Amino acid sequence: MRNVAIVGTGHSKFGVRNDVSMSELAWEAIKEALDEAGLEQKDIEYFIVSNTGGWSSEPLPAVVIGEYSKLVPKGTVRVEAACASGSAAVKLAYDMVASGHVDIAMAIGIEKMNESPTPIVVEFIGRAGNYFWEFENFGLTFPGYYALHATAYMSKYGATEEDLCKVAVKNHYYGARNPKAQFQREITVEKCMSSRYIAWPLKLYDCCPITDGAAAVILAGEEKAKELTDSPIWIAGIGSASGTSNMSKRGTFSSLEAAVVAAKMAYKEAKINPDNPVKYIDVANVHDCFTIAELMAYEDLGFAKRGEAVDWIRNDQTYIGGKIPVNVDGGLKAKGHPIGATGEGMIAELTRQLLSRVEKDRQAPIKNGYALAHNIGGTGHYAYVTILSLSKPMR
Amino acid sequence: MRNVAIVGTGHSKFGVRNDVSMSELAWEAIKEALDEAGLEQKDIEYFIVSNTGGWSSEPLPAVVIGEYSKLVPKGTVRVEAACASGSAAVKLAYDMVASGHVDIAMAIGIEKMNESPTPIVVEFIGRAGNYFWEFENFGLTFPGYYALHATAYMSKYGATEEDLCKVAVKNHYYGARNPKAQFQREITVEKCMSSRYIAWPLKLYDCCPITDGAAAVILAGEEKAKELTDSPIWIAGIGSASGTSNMSKRGTFSSLEAAVVAAKMAYKEAKINPDNPVKYIDVANVHDCFTIAELMAYEDLGFAKRGEAVDWIRNDQTYIGGKIPVNVDGGLKAKGHPIGATGEGMIAELTRQLLSRVEKDRQAPIKNGYALAHNIGGTGHYAYVTILSLSKPMR
Repeated sequence: MRNVAIVGTGHSKFGVRNDVSMSELAWEAIKEALDEAGLEQKDIEYFIVSNTGGWSSEPLPAVVIGEYSKLVPKGTVRVEAACASGSAAVKLAYDMVASGHVDIAMAIGIEKMNESPTPIVVEFIGRAGNYFWEFENFGLTFPGYYALHATAYMSKYGATEEDLCKVAVKNHYYGARNPKAQFQREITVEKCMSSRYIAWPLKLYDCCPITDGAAAVILAGEEKAKELTDSPIWIAGIGSASGTSNMSKRGTFSSLEAAVVAAKMAYKEAKINPDNPVKYIDVANVHDCFTIAELMAYEDLGFAKRGEAVDWIRNDQTYIGGKIPVNVDGGLKAKGHPIGATGEGMIAELTRQLLSRVEKDRQAPIKNGYALAHNIGGTGHYAYVTILSLSKPMR
Repeated sequence: MRNVAIVGTGHSKFGVRNDVSMSELAWEAIKEALDEAGLEQKDIEYFIVSNTGGWSSEPLPAVVIGEYSKLVPKGTVRVEAACASGSAAVKLAYDMVASGHVDIAMAIGIEKMNESPTPIVVEFIGRAGNYFWEFENFGLTFPGYYALHATAYMSKYGATEEDLCKVAVKNHYYGARNPKAQFQREITVEKCMSSRYIAWPLKLYDCCPITDGAAAVILAGEEKAKELTDSPIWIAGIGSASGTSNMSKRGTFSSLEAAVVAAKMAYKEAKINPDNPVKYIDVANVHDCFTIAELMAYEDLGFAKRGEAVDWIRNDQTYIGGKIPVNVDGGLKAKGHPIGATGEGMIAELTRQLLSRVEKDRQAPIKNGYALAHNIGGTGHYAYVTILSLSKPMR
């Protein structure tokens, strides 16, 4: 199995992007990635487009993006793993390059959610829970699903609504320092606490926004990566797992079981001790679609012990300077969550973190040279954990 | 790069399948493939679901199918490459197993098109042409697109409507001998010629039906394949390419350029002389969504020289006993075209052909041990060509 490195990344401005078409938005990220890698379109041997669609009128996004970006006649496919689609695209590109079938592949994430009115978007996302039973019969939408997790977690570990708001405050703090973020302004716990309930105990500021955005990652095999760049970022391991979509069948509500499985797989491949990953990992992005999801992620990834995430957020342990900086690009909460692009957005951000290339006031200190992306689809239906490394992995 | 073999295949009955849910239909194919491979669900390390959806109310098919089939918590993703989705799923599973990241992966194709009324299905497929320009402005649907190809081909090479009907007659002849086929009855040229026009010169019998169906293929790395079976079928090569969706930008209308590119890639990997592939390939399935598409495929794949496909169909050269048997399972035309499952359906069929396990009156003679699947998405937006082999490829 050969090593695979990231040799170029692109990241559009996230937000409400009515100023561009889907293809133009994708091109912002594709062009940046090609430029960073010093490549032209003809050098890309295969491209994978992650996009969930549904709100867009274009049924074949890979086709129109490939054509607009002059990637035709290269092979392509669209992939969907709900909100983890972007990480799935990177995983499949990783397999493809590792196999030796191609030397260079590109994962392109894109979503234009604001093409549909908000109620339609909320309904469509709701169908991506458990469509047949919980959506149709109980009207559960995503804030409702994560509210169930929040009440379970609060009841079990004594977390409060203020604790949840502190996640939002941290992520807005870093979003305010990231020019690519949808929300570039700080908030206070008071502001979050006084925002209206969406699904008790989750309030408006506990929820990530509806976002348009694109991100791209170019992967290359070891020899090609060495030709192309002096600063490759290696893929050390990827874990992926699925979980039941039925909340009624879950063994626990204070954790996402698929995330635990995926994290273990990723740690094993990356040869990182799963009992103390914080010793190795310098910076992480986790899937904070709702504030409660970030607290569960600290524990599911083994960063904090069960029930300790509350103390971590109370004591600022996931700010830069704490135990491990998390979502210092603003996270889904403030940078935004353009569903199909979120995974590539995390991986592009972490590549730049490991290379110490982000804005100074949100750059994590790089010591051990590992970074981790935790990307969830549905309410834990899909989980992908990707570990990046500054040093070449030993296979 | 390690060799990868098919160790199990499953193929549901194709047709109007209102008797089963999407998950039940997928399970028919999954169970058959597991049984053939002698495997249980826990042995499958990752599963890829090919499905275009759109007509179905279920937005996350991989999730519900994984859960129903007890494949949870294994990693998964859904892929879409329009009507070539199934071949794309097999290609990505091939990469994954070849990389060594997993030893066993499964590609599951599924489509339940009859969940929506026919006019909605036809409109949705039409959007998968060139949505923005040709669909919106000219109202082009798929019979219209392929009618443009038919008139171009007829004008250039002197093909007649009767010649097109002969493709339908052949594929119905073999569909009548395949218990899995949607249409299990023979037709005559007269019956085809007297059917109503859908888009001149294409008549009802020139068009494939709207189909529900599922198919599955299990892939394993070389060592694992040898453990599991005495009769592995090897993947010798896969080519994939994309093409413009704009008919107005095509260089030719009597060929699908992406198919030519994909075929060359597949022949190169399989070490088959592209100037005379018929010398090597014992049996092929080609993408006959409309009868004209089968004639173009003979030439795009290099089976026949440009303009010669007309003589081939007039002289029964693609029946068993001719130069090369094509679509002897009934093809898309008579076996049916459940979009997301068509690729796995072709590859399952060809695996069984190479193993001489299909019904006797439609079994191709196996001499050189190669088989080829040609699977197109859109009007040549996507093209995948997969070559299977009875002997282990030399790498």
